Amino acid sequence: MAIEGSVVEARQPRIRLGMVGGGAGAFIGAVHRIAARLDDHYELVAGALSSTPEKSIASGRELGLDPARCYGSFKEMAIREARLKNGIEAVAIVTPNHVHYEAAKEFLKRGIHVICDKPLTSTLSDARKLKKLADESDALFVLTHNYTGYPMVRQARQMVQDGVIGPVRLVQMEYPQDWLTENIEQTGQKQAAWRTDPARSGAGGSTGDIGTHAYNLGCFVSGLELEELAADLDSFVPGRQLDDNAHVMMRFAEKDGVRAKGMLWCSQVAPGNENGLKIRVYGTKGGLEWVQTDPNYLWHSPFGEPKRLLTRNGAGSDAAAGRVSRIPSGHPEGYLEGFANIYTEAARAILAKRQGTKVDPAVFYPTVDDGLKGMIFVEACVQSSKRNGAWVKV
Amino acid sequence: MAIEGSVVEARQPRIRLGMVGGGAGAFIGAVHRIAARLDDHYELVAGALSSTPEKSIASGRELGLDPARCYGSFKEMAIREARLKNGIEAVAIVTPNHVHYEAAKEFLKRGIHVICDKPLTSTLSDARKLKKLADESDALFVLTHNYTGYPMVRQARQMVQDGVIGPVRLVQMEYPQDWLTENIEQTGQKQAAWRTDPARSGAGGSTGDIGTHAYNLGCFVSGLELEELAADLDSFVPGRQLDDNAHVMMRFAEKDGVRAKGMLWCSQVAPGNENGLKIRVYGTKGGLEWVQTDPNYLWHSPFGEPKRLLTRNGAGSDAAAGRVSRIPSGHPEGYLEGFANIYTEAARAILAKRQGTKVDPAVFYPTVDDGLKGMIFVEACVQSSKRNGAWVKV
Amino acid sequence: MAIEGSVVEARQPRIRLGMVGGGAGAFIGAVHRIAARLDDHYELVAGALSSTPEKSIASGRELGLDPARCYGSFKEMAIREARLKNGIEAVAIVTPNHVHYEAAKEFLKRGIHVICDKPLTSTLSDARKLKKLADESDALFVLTHNYTGYPMVRQARQMVQDGVIGPVRLVQMEYPQDWLTENIEQTGQKQAAWRTDPARSGAGGSTGDIGTHAYNLGCFVSGLELEELAADLDSFVPGRQLDDNAHVMMRFAEKDGVRAKGMLWCSQVAPGNENGLKIRVYGTKGGLEWVQTDPNYLWHSPFGEPKRLLTRNGAGSDAAAGRVSRIPSGHPEGYLEGFANIYTEAARAILAKRQGTKVDPAVFYPTVDDGLKGMIFVEACVQSSKRNGAWVKV
Amino acid sequence: MAIEGSVVEARQPRIRLGMVGGGAGAFIGAVHRIAARLDDHYELVAGALSSTPEKSIASGRELGLDPARCYGSFKEMAIREARLKNGIEAVAIVTPNHVHYEAAKEFLKRGIHVICDKPLTSTLSDARKLKKLADESDALFVLTHNYTGYPMVRQARQMVQDGVIGPVRLVQMEYPQDWLTENIEQTGQKQAAWRTDPARSGAGGSTGDIGTHAYNLGCFVSGLELEELAADLDSFVPGRQLDDNAHVMMRFAEKDGVRAKGMLWCSQVAPGNENGLKIRVYGTKGGLEWVQTDPNYLWHSPFGEPKRLLTRNGAGSDAAAGRVSRIPSGHPEGYLEGFANIYTEAARAILAKRQGTKVDPAVFYPTVDDGLKGMIFVEACVQSSKRNGAWVKV
Repeated sequence: MAIEGSVVEARQPRIRLGMVGGGAGAFIGAVHRIAARLDDHYELVAGALSSTPEKSIASGRELGLDPARCYGSFKEMAIREARLKNGIEAVAIVTPNHVHYEAAKEFLKRGIHVICDKPLTSTLSDARKLKKLADESDALFVLTHNYTGYPMVRQARQMVQDGVIGPVRLVQMEYPQDWLTENIEQTGQKQAAWRTDPARSGAGGSTGDIGTHAYNLGCFVSGLELEELAADLDSFVPGRQLDDNAHVMMRFAEKDGVRAKGMLWCSQVAPGNENGLKIRVYGTKGGLEWVQTDPNYLWHSPFGEPKRLLTRNGAGSDAAAGRVSRIPSGHPEGYLEGFANIYTEAARAILAKRQGTKVDPAVFYPTVDDGLKGMIFVEACVQSSKRNGAWVKV
Repeated sequence: MAIEGSVVEARQPRIRLGMVGGGAGAFIGAVHRIAARLDDHYELVAGALSSTPEKSIASGRELGLDPARCYGSFKEMAIREARLKNGIEAVAIVTPNHVHYEAAKEFLKRGIHVICDKPLTSTLSDARKLKKLADESDALFVLTHNYTGYPMVRQARQMVQDGVIGPVRLVQMEYPQDWLTENIEQTGQKQAAWRTDPARSGAGGSTGDIGTHAYNLGCFVSGLELEELAADLDSFVPGRQLDDNAHVMMRFAEKDGVRAKGMLWCSQVAPGNENGLKIRVYGTKGGLEWVQTDPNYLWHSPFGEPKRLLTRNGAGSDAAAGRVSRIPSGHPEGYLEGFANIYTEAARAILAKRQGTKVDPAVFYPTVDDGLKGMIFVEACVQSSKRNGAWVKV
Repeated sequence: MAIEGSVVEARQPRIRLGMVGGGAGAFIGAVHRIAARLDDHYELVAGALSSTPEKSIASGRELGLDPARCYGSFKEMAIREARLKNGIEAVAIVTPNHVHYEAAKEFLKRGIHVICDKPLTSTLSDARKLKKLADESDALFVLTHNYTGYPMVRQARQMVQDGVIGPVRLVQMEYPQDWLTENIEQTGQKQAAWRTDPARSGAGGSTGDIGTHAYNLGCFVSGLELEELAADLDSFVPGRQLDDNAHVMMRFAEKDGVRAKGMLWCSQVAPGNENGLKIRVYGTKGGLEWVQTDPNYLWHSPFGEPKRLLTRNGAGSDAAAGRVSRIPSGHPEGYLEGFANIYTEAARAILAKRQGTKVDPAVFYPTVDDGLKGMIFVEACVQSSKRNGAWVKV
Repeated sequence: MAIEGSVVEARQPRIRLGMVGGGAGAFIGAVHRIAARLDDHYELVAGALSSTPEKSIASGRELGLDPARCYGSFKEMAIREARLKNGIEAVAIVTPNHVHYEAAKEFLKRGIHVICDKPLTSTLSDARKLKKLADESDALFVLTHNYTGYPMVRQARQMVQDGVIGPVRLVQMEYPQDWLTENIEQTGQKQAAWRTDPARSGAGGSTGDIGTHAYNLGCFVSGLELEELAADLDSFVPGRQLDDNAHVMMRFAEKDGVRAKGMLWCSQVAPGNENGLKIRVYGTKGGLEWVQTDPNYLWHSPFGEPKRLLTRNGAGSDAAAGRVSRIPSGHPEGYLEGFANIYTEAARAILAKRQGTKVDPAVFYPTVDDGLKGMIFVEACVQSSKRNGAWVKV
């Protein structure tokens, strides 16, 4: 209805950013760079983009980086940038999972803020160590559970917090994909190769890659804490080592007098689903439904009244959504904008640190705690499934 | 695209039908009568519509029945109609669940065909006895698992049988409702009262009332047999005795070299859902999706190709759908037409019996076997939930 | 939310019904018979189903009619049935358009109620004569503009009448189909043959067949009267004599201080559209949107508030919808139920006549006036198009 | 299905960009800046952001501009930047319409590329002059008809060009909004004030602001040229000087033996519509449908086959969409990405100029010709409406 935007653009010198991983051909590295650029809070100035100095310099050149700041290893980058007068203030880690911990360690201990792709690590023990490191560091640790950046996801959480749907009884989560329906990891597809390899991905396949997203979002919106789960994992494609489908039942800790239940389905073998992340939350007074492929909408069903279709920045949209929206309702924002919101929230916190001011309490970004929860979720899924679907506490 | 219809109307004298239950104010009785009438294969001529002769006669008068054929009990009706020269050939049983077995017994043993509402009975032991009776009887036993009558559900089953989506890996079923979100059984709502009462409904609440539908449909479309399940049942509304929400994980028997998995969610406390029955089936070569609230559509996703929206009697619609459709594509058919398809399929079988001819092999209607499976499903859900979600064989 | 139904079934002896047209293979005849049967107010007892006595008897036999009441012509039927003690009280006329007038005349003048398919006639002059006859007759004349029977269409009209969306500014109507995209009238498709033949259909092709529906519905919902229109008609398929696409701009008579405008698009050559009838009405305070392919929904957009999805018999559904609904929300009703509502409304009026009582003021069915308006609309479209889209008063 | 991205990032020094308009509070200026930044081809280095030097410097400071390059007028900026060694290579003009011509002139004549918001100008005579200037200049003139940047719009055009839907018969365009349903221009809403003011917007209200978008897109996708139109314009809100609703019928020039027809509806007073731009194109062999609010989808209906839902970068998506996509299918892109595609296409052309190489023939961006066509369309609408909807040649 309105066509006023609310873009807040940079007023301070941009945050100097480095990147680990994300060399030529990588998907998620490019996404992080766009996300960092979108609201103009960051400037990419250094990188350990690839596994050799030569490749790193070549990739850096394509991105317009000074070759002197293109490093052959994250360790070298951490050491040298920490010594520069205008060295990086923050680093984005966008490597496969098994590198996250070692890379993050080098930067955190030098006081450089870390923005890390998810899942947190490839092993639960690494995750616990990283949690400890992050807690002890003065630097921030930001995990790009990017779906929490979608405006209507923010609004959904706010509505639950405000009691709009009453105490929550049910959280239904799903994240079906179809890209691993066939055995493409054997035919040279690079993304498939590492994501189905336990050495690089960790113990979880679909659970780690997308199940963590659905779980994170279910908790984020509902405000609930998982207590235990029962899982049945499968690797439907012959020869695949990690799960490509998971069915999970959940029991949440009591809140507002209700012990909520949940279901989670994640799959990489469900033809027709691209990134079908969907969250439904039901309370005593209403329901909410959000789907990632149509992210500018939020269905709100007050019990006993007609369903309402809320739109980003439209009538019925609230401040929680508005503060992370850029353009008027009816003009869709998407995945990159949601991802950029994580970067921009992080920037707000980093700039506050830089200036020694307090962070606006409305600022939100996922942290190492969310990452650790995700790793515990994956581990619990794997353990439960091994024990024939027994309930496992988390 | 085409506007030719394919209505096959009655050519033989109508089947003489009686009804047990379905007196004034009952919802499902009226649905059965419309379903019986729609394709003109039946004529309602007798009834034991209510629990007393007076009420039964009053209800019968409203329906234009001869008062002499309005009975005070189903037993009386069975005995007397069986003696009439032109007594009823078939009876519709539309009472609460706990009456099904006793009523069906009286008619089956007198050779009168039974068309019975679901679930089959209120107890598993009744169900087993009824199965035995039905098997021994020369009369037909038809269970109105009405959703199997929807044309696009028929087409989905046919496509799976034809191998269009390859061997099935996943069956995702859900049936959320919201009408029991609050404790309306305490406020005099008649439907709610008996459906939440173990004495009249049996051991299952949402599992019996709607879970059986979702389970029946998942098996019908996928062609799979359930092997075991793990269930977590809840009664979220304080004071409610039967489950109003169920989360179920399923393992199916091996078929075509694949051991498929499934999830089922049924709920009566999910605000914003009226009758949200939805079935998704995924195989190695594609996926299918059908939603009851938009029943004229079937999504077909061949792996690696764009999704296709098949429409009833439209391009891409097949003979399995066409033979149970009445009107051209683009003019929606609904719940009553799907329900009527069960009656019409039953009529084809009854008329074949009457004439001593063979039934067209394309004719399908749910039977006592489907009913027994449903009862076993409910029992398994209840047992699993009592045993903290342990896997229970069915 | 609720699962109580509200089926009102017949309490009086059924109305004795005859049928003109509708022999073997005809689509719309079967639809009328189902519609008449659905709520059990009618009994088909006589027919002039085909153009020869032999065919008529054969068709009648298939429908279970007494051969003595299967006639070779509508005139014979009218004369003989009028003399019978229990002759027909009403007749359904389901022939091609050019027969409507002559057939209706024979029954109206004998006091037999007429239920006539649309469009009213094939020529405007016939329409005017029929209007006169109907006005003079004591018998009822019901036109099956069936889309007015959809519950959510009724609700939309009621909401406009109640001022929910304020004075109406805009009425956007469309009815695209695709079945005449190719020249199937030349390849023996019977429906296509008569519907594209001026001698049998009249001056309008798509305008007469479906444009009249969209126009009728736009007026029905908005409560507005058309004042003038400008039309651009095409016959895109080479060799086709009647329009297969029409673009129309409309100006409505002033109401509540506003002179509303409208657009109407009807097409038979728009691939991907089966029966895409859609009505959107916008006032100063809100908008309404209804689509025939998903008829159980009505979108209501109060200006400045979130859109609401109203569902038939669901929360937000009103009495106007409820009185023509049979089953609870979430179980879809469709085209046949909407069509049956016209028959049932007519039955209410016919039974009131039979009993000499007053008709419930809530009863609505389209009449000869709606039919005449439709014919005037077609004529105006054709005239405007001939005069290069000049505005033509109606 | 695939999760590989295809982001091509900057390899050459960024294009030095200036901006005219876009000071604090302006919506479209911020959009242009994000669009310029997204793919990292531009660097904003100068601005005449507001109407006074002080405001311009203040706005520039918020954007991190060097105050020395924040100018008080576009003329001053053009003169001084043209003399700088590293002066701007391109300028974005994001003022109200009436300033476009004078501003563009200053830059074009100095060889500075112009990226201009639409509509082209406020008067047709300005538009014709600007066309002449742009044709004579060596600098590029890019008009941000941004919807042509959406990937699935690109694919739709390609499919029509490839003959997938056969010769086009029909183009149905609509762009309803609701934000001017009430008289907000009188209550200080800045966007509403200038957009409803003839002096600043020109002769067209909704026709100029959004009708031009729908018209541009209809022609872009269909590949057709408009020949004449008949329009009926209204100002429904009392006191409003410019049209807030337009109904338009169109006739296109013959192509492939078919004289296509079209309809266009644009409105700012249709409650419930935010930016409901929708394009439907029908040919002899199929149909296409695209809706701006769900821009990652394209419906393709091959005649006689089921409808297919094509998704950006998904199965069935082609190279035309792929080359302007950044992320995998199932992760939605939106308005800003589509807008950025115009900037990135322009960058490709500007960089080719800079290097003296040939532009990749796949590069597309709207030009002054599209802008002039839009102005002619507005003028024709206004003239036709004044002459009571007479057909006006364009």
